[in-house]
Amino acid sequence: MRIASLAAALLAPLAALAAEPLPSWTDGPTKTAILDFVAATTDPASPDFVPPDDRIAAFDNDGNLWAEQPYYFQLQFALDRAAALAEADPDWAATPALEAAAAGDVEAVLGGGEAALLEVVGATHSGMSVEAFTAEVAAWLETATHPETGMRYRDMIYQPMLELLDHLRASGYATYIVSGGGIDFIRAYAEEAYGVPPEQVVGSQGAAAFEIVDGVPQVVKGPDLFFIDDKGGKPVGIARHIGRRPVIASGNSDGDLAMLRWTTAGAGPRLALLLHHTDAGREFAYDRESHVGRLDEALDAADPEGWTVIDMARDWRRVWPE
Amino acid sequence: MRIASLAAALLAPLAALAAEPLPSWTDGPTKTAILDFVAATTDPASPDFVPPDDRIAAFDNDGNLWAEQPYYFQLQFALDRAAALAEADPDWAATPALEAAAAGDVEAVLGGGEAALLEVVGATHSGMSVEAFTAEVAAWLETATHPETGMRYRDMIYQPMLELLDHLRASGYATYIVSGGGIDFIRAYAEEAYGVPPEQVVGSQGAAAFEIVDGVPQVVKGPDLFFIDDKGGKPVGIARHIGRRPVIASGNSDGDLAMLRWTTAGAGPRLALLLHHTDAGREFAYDRESHVGRLDEALDAADPEGWTVIDMARDWRRVWPE
Repeated sequence: MRIASLAAALLAPLAALAAEPLPSWTDGPTKTAILDFVAATTDPASPDFVPPDDRIAAFDNDGNLWAEQPYYFQLQFALDRAAALAEADPDWAATPALEAAAAGDVEAVLGGGEAALLEVVGATHSGMSVEAFTAEVAAWLETATHPETGMRYRDMIYQPMLELLDHLRASGYATYIVSGGGIDFIRAYAEEAYGVPPEQVVGSQGAAAFEIVDGVPQVVKGPDLFFIDDKGGKPVGIARHIGRRPVIASGNSDGDLAMLRWTTAGAGPRLALLLHHTDAGREFAYDRESHVGRLDEALDAADPEGWTVIDMARDWRRVWPE
Repeated sequence: MRIASLAAALLAPLAALAAEPLPSWTDGPTKTAILDFVAATTDPASPDFVPPDDRIAAFDNDGNLWAEQPYYFQLQFALDRAAALAEADPDWAATPALEAAAAGDVEAVLGGGEAALLEVVGATHSGMSVEAFTAEVAAWLETATHPETGMRYRDMIYQPMLELLDHLRASGYATYIVSGGGIDFIRAYAEEAYGVPPEQVVGSQGAAAFEIVDGVPQVVKGPDLFFIDDKGGKPVGIARHIGRRPVIASGNSDGDLAMLRWTTAGAGPRLALLLHHTDAGREFAYDRESHVGRLDEALDAADPEGWTVIDMARDWRRVWPE
C-alpha cells in the first residue's frame, strides 16, 4: 500500500465527517445502496469488511465518467487530428477512410466499419512518442467543444461520479478507469479531471516500440492495434494490469457486462453499478438501440444479478460540474 | 536545520527516522550515491526535488531482487509442473520438448531453443484461471529448493535490495518490478517477499481470455505468448502499465539496457543502478559470457552514461536475509 493510500485510509473517518458524501445524488435507494456498501466494506466490525489493499473500484469511462454521445469524443479527436495532418501534408489522406476523416465526415468513417475506424485511429494516434501524443490530446481538450451542448468535452464529466470517486478514495478504495478507449488518450486528462493517476488507467492499446530517434530513447506509438479493453477484454485488462479482482465495478453498457460478471463472481461483498442514460433533458437518453454505448444485455442482467442500476434522471440531482 | 529540511524530516515516515537505511550496504561510493540521490529528490529545498507522484522506481527481478543462476527459477517451476502434469496424464508429454521438461532435462529443453522454451512455458502456465495459477506458484515456492545452495528459491532474495526498496518507499517512491519473467508468476510472491503489490508488477504475459466455465466467470490463461517485457519491451511495458517514466531504474543485465537508457534520458534527476554479480563465494560471479543474465553491453555503457554499478562483492555486507 502506498503511503498516500494509507494516509487516505487513516483520514477516512475525518473526511466522512467533514462533509456529507454524494451531495449531487438524490436521496433514495441507489444512493443508500452505494453508501451502505462503502460503509460495510470499510467498517472493521462488519462481516463485509474488506482490507484496504483489496479495495479496488473499476470504472468504465465513456458514458460512465463523461458523456459519449453522439459518438466517442476520442473519435472527434481523431477526425480533428486527421484534418490537421492532411492540411500539413496534402498527400496524407491517401485512402478513402483517411480522406473521410480529414473532411470530418464521421458518417463515412463509421460507414466503413471497423476496418476504417481502426485505420483512422491508427493513423492519427501514431508516429510520435507517448509523451508527445498525450500532449497533443491535452492541447485538444483545452478547446474542443461538443457540437450539441457547446460545452468543452472535458467539462462533460459527471459531477455525481466525481463525488463517488472522491468518496471511495476517502474510504481507502483505489479508483481505476477500465475503458475501451485508448489508454494514452485517457491518461492525458484523467488525473486532472477525475483524480485518477496514469498508473490507474486501463484501456485499449496500440502497438508501441522502444526506439532511439536522433539519439533520444523513446517509446513510439505505432498504427497497429495491440489490445482491445472492451467486453471480455475488460476482465483480462484488469487481471493483467491490476492483478486483483475489483470489489466495485461501474459501467453503463454491454461492453461492461463481462467486467460486472467477473467482479460480482468474486467471493465476499461486491457492488456492481450500471448507469442508465434516461435523461434526454440534461444529458442524453439511450439504451438498447444505441450505436454508441448500447445497453441491452447488461440491462436485462441487472435485476436477476442484483446489480444497482443508476437511473440518471431519477438518481442525479445534477449532471455536470459547476 | 532549515525549515524545508525540517518539514521533510517531519513528513518522513517514522520508520525512516528510526533506523539507519541500507545497513547491509558497505559504506562507500555506491551507498553514498544512492542515499544522496534519494535525499536530493525528496528534499523540497533541493533543485533536484521530485514531486511525490513522480517518484517511480523500476526494478528488474531475476538476478536483481533474487538470484537467477544456474537458470531462471521460473523455468524450474515449469519443469516441476511438467513432471506433475505428465504423472497425472501419461499422454500429456506428447512432444519432444514437453517430454524433456517432464523428465526434468533442462539441457534438452534449452537445446531446443526459444521454440521449445515457449512451448514448455505455454503448456505449464495455461489452462487454468489466473488465481489458480498464482496459487500453484505460491504452493511450489513454499518448498522448492535450489540445487546448489539448498536454500528455498523464495529465500534467495537479496537483503540489500529489500533494504533499498524499503528506503525508497519510506521516501515516497512507488517501487515497481519490471521483469522479463511472467507477471502472474512474480505476483504469486512479490508482495510477501518484496512488499510490492500485484498492481506494481510489470512482466511478460501470456494470452488470456474471459470465459464462463461451468457458470463461473474467469480469466483463463492460454498457452500463447502475448507480450515479452524484456529489452525494448521494458520501456514499452512501463509506458503501458505505469504511464510515467521512472526516476530510478535498477537492473543487472543487457535485458535492462533499454530501460536504463529510457529512464536516464528523461529530464531532471535520474538514477540508473546496475548490479554486477562479482561474488562467487556468497552468490555467483558472471557477466559477459553468461547464458542467463548476460551483462556485456550494459556494463560497457555504465561508465560513459554515468550509471552506478553495484559491485556485489564490494558493496554488499551480506547477500541473503537472516
